[in-house]
Amino acid sequence: MTQDIALDDDREDDAYVLDRATVQAIRDAVEVGDAPGLAGLMEPLHSADIADLLEQISAGERRDLVLLYDRDFDGEILSELDEGLREEIVAYLNPQVLADAVRDLETDDVVDLLEDLDEPQQEAILEALEDSDRVAVEQSLNYPEFSAGRLMQRETMMAPEHWSVGEAIDFVRSSENLPEQFYHLILVDPRLEPIGNVTLGRIMSASRETKLADITEDSFRTFEVSEDEADVAYAFNQYHLISAPVVDENNRLVGVITIDDAMGILDEEHEEDLLRLAGVGEGRLSDRVIETTKQRFPWLAVNLVTAVLASMVISRFADTIAQFVALAVLMPIVASMGGNAGTQSLTVAVRAIATRDLTGANVWRVLRREVYVGIVNGLIFAVVMGIVGVVWFGIPMLGVVIGVAMVLNLAVAALAGVGIPVFLERMGIDPALASGAFVTTVTDIVGFFAFLGLAAIWLF
Amino acid sequence: MTQDIALDDDREDDAYVLDRATVQAIRDAVEVGDAPGLAGLMEPLHSADIADLLEQISAGERRDLVLLYDRDFDGEILSELDEGLREEIVAYLNPQVLADAVRDLETDDVVDLLEDLDEPQQEAILEALEDSDRVAVEQSLNYPEFSAGRLMQRETMMAPEHWSVGEAIDFVRSSENLPEQFYHLILVDPRLEPIGNVTLGRIMSASRETKLADITEDSFRTFEVSEDEADVAYAFNQYHLISAPVVDENNRLVGVITIDDAMGILDEEHEEDLLRLAGVGEGRLSDRVIETTKQRFPWLAVNLVTAVLASMVISRFADTIAQFVALAVLMPIVASMGGNAGTQSLTVAVRAIATRDLTGANVWRVLRREVYVGIVNGLIFAVVMGIVGVVWFGIPMLGVVIGVAMVLNLAVAALAGVGIPVFLERMGIDPALASGAFVTTVTDIVGFFAFLGLAAIWLF
Repeated sequence: MTQDIALDDDREDDAYVLDRATVQAIRDAVEVGDAPGLAGLMEPLHSADIADLLEQISAGERRDLVLLYDRDFDGEILSELDEGLREEIVAYLNPQVLADAVRDLETDDVVDLLEDLDEPQQEAILEALEDSDRVAVEQSLNYPEFSAGRLMQRETMMAPEHWSVGEAIDFVRSSENLPEQFYHLILVDPRLEPIGNVTLGRIMSASRETKLADITEDSFRTFEVSEDEADVAYAFNQYHLISAPVVDENNRLVGVITIDDAMGILDEEHEEDLLRLAGVGEGRLSDRVIETTKQRFPWLAVNLVTAVLASMVISRFADTIAQFVALAVLMPIVASMGGNAGTQSLTVAVRAIATRDLTGANVWRVLRREVYVGIVNGLIFAVVMGIVGVVWFGIPMLGVVIGVAMVLNLAVAALAGVGIPVFLERMGIDPALASGAFVTTVTDIVGFFAFLGLAAIWLF
Repeated sequence: MTQDIALDDDREDDAYVLDRATVQAIRDAVEVGDAPGLAGLMEPLHSADIADLLEQISAGERRDLVLLYDRDFDGEILSELDEGLREEIVAYLNPQVLADAVRDLETDDVVDLLEDLDEPQQEAILEALEDSDRVAVEQSLNYPEFSAGRLMQRETMMAPEHWSVGEAIDFVRSSENLPEQFYHLILVDPRLEPIGNVTLGRIMSASRETKLADITEDSFRTFEVSEDEADVAYAFNQYHLISAPVVDENNRLVGVITIDDAMGILDEEHEEDLLRLAGVGEGRLSDRVIETTKQRFPWLAVNLVTAVLASMVISRFADTIAQFVALAVLMPIVASMGGNAGTQSLTVAVRAIATRDLTGANVWRVLRREVYVGIVNGLIFAVVMGIVGVVWFGIPMLGVVIGVAMVLNLAVAALAGVGIPVFLERMGIDPALASGAFVTTVTDIVGFFAFLGLAAIWLF
């Protein structure tokens, strides 16, 4: 059956997706235990693709594959893996293979890897490292999680501010152990404070006598080690940074962050916002049923409580409904429209907070706009539903009731959709995390109360 | 009032947000028409921050600010602006200022700017460009929108494959008009096909005799001009690319894309997914009420239709409800839980499709897992609601009815949440765009039908 449906079909020309034939060939090789065949199939794959492959196959296949691949297992694959799977895979690797795999990684990748492992696994990896690397990794782990300190690489290329281009070139040419990727020399003053970036391109094209200080880049920013990685990612995107120095509390250079790492963080932050808005936890596609059930449960439990609250509102009007069942038929429409309109406002507000576009300067204007939009759309749908109500049930007053309830609920939805995330942000709570529950609670309760309450007054 | 609530308060140490005092000072300068004061306040700001500022103030303030700032208006600000605002701002600028502003931009930024302007504005800007730039821009505009061809810059640094490091260094040193940002030399064969990247760092540190071909980077990818920019952004993130050559249909080098542009696209794609999932169109925070109303209306209209469909299901059971009003009280709970569970599955599936993690290799396993999760959570909430039902209304069978309906609806929610986006993707429709409406329609209808249907059979 697996072969019958395949998202890959539409993307045969898309070189960035593991193609179906390769995946199938790899699974076949694993099934028959063909180690050389497996190695041959894996060889042309990028470690990021191998990591994706491991995430897509079942837990059993994963174990068999790792055990069969064994000696060829590369540290890069570990650092590309979803956090949730690392512990599992590391447990399969024999200690020698693990040590070899980890020794090839840059220290920032080792830090990233270690964060998600349990104590014994961490120690096994730390012991495998060379002394200097181990010290660097241990220092990085002292910085708070999700901080610039964890994200940075400690290998930096720096130059005194008074150097000329010629001195810089001689320095680079005589350096051993250059970082894998570097694009700038960081100019530092005598106290090791970074004062500017010079791109390698400018160094190569300037005359040897040119002072480095005269050809620094316009956009230059430094980050503190304790700064939140999400703020770092935002700044890279906002200011088109390629690399930026990281400084300690004394403003001294301790590392450098490059844009590829910042891009990865930006991607993770987006994922987090998207999943949190939907009430989904830290889940991975490779998680098992029991883990996924646990991740989904809390939000559903919150929703159950809010749904029961809404039901209690309805139950206050049980007599009204018993006299006129059309109310039960129509009431979900008012609540549903409010919930959708509220989610629209909420999503716009959460995104705008994430991109620093919703600030003190415009929060009142945005709130006002959303409420106006809610009222205008409310009026349109009030007319539509008023007509539907009249045509369906033949009672003009019923149309009026549903129309007025609709306008009210859409205005409240807008207010809650913007107001709640703004308030949560002020309280220091991630606005994506809990807003949804509050907003739909408000729209359900207001929707049922307004509709049934107006009906109780105006229809009898 | 504006001063009383301000998101900035929590972020006084956050250098990346325009601080409130600056924004207020700028608004004051604009109000009194103090041009030198305004220029002084704007001078230290990054063009990205000026663009953000323009997005945050009201339309009237925006016009006054641009007219007052006038001669100092920088092309960079235009390219940082939200697409929706560019047309408005360009209209305020006098032609000479506009021409000066645009001439400083790289061609890829000019292309990005022109895309969103109307015909007369486009022509005014094209005329302001130098001949060679105009030709380059016009060629880029021939590539499809959202393609690698639109995203790339045409200024490339290339070297024949047989060159040595020494030849490369001499070439760079003698080049005039180097691109603002470049990090690699692209090696090309005699047919101008790119065959590898060499980082400037390696060139600087290798001996002059080293062959460039011997020090190329491991990860090297090229993109075709027609390739979707979303795929380009995905590949940059997946493979940690810093820059990559773009080739035409004959595989010849025509441009280069750098990671900062790819990061911007990744960010836009995320925004699109997030907003589409919430049924929000292309809106901007700076849009007016009328525009926003139009953007929100379609999804609300779809939701109204689906809500009416659900109401029609309820109306089939009007007699049942009339006999037993508790059903009306409890029925929204079943629908609401289904809607939430469905949204959870849907969001996970949409994200996994976007990151190429949901493929033919694992779609059945993911679908099965989601359904199991739905059933397990359904059983838990069935027990809880069963008890609530009994305690609240004192009728054991009512507890059974709501419990069974809950399990059914959560299983269906999982099936719809994964199945619908996968199906839409296969049909070539953006799974983020329309899935939400389908999923909640399914869970509303199944929820009401299962609960009321079972009640009609078992309770009477």
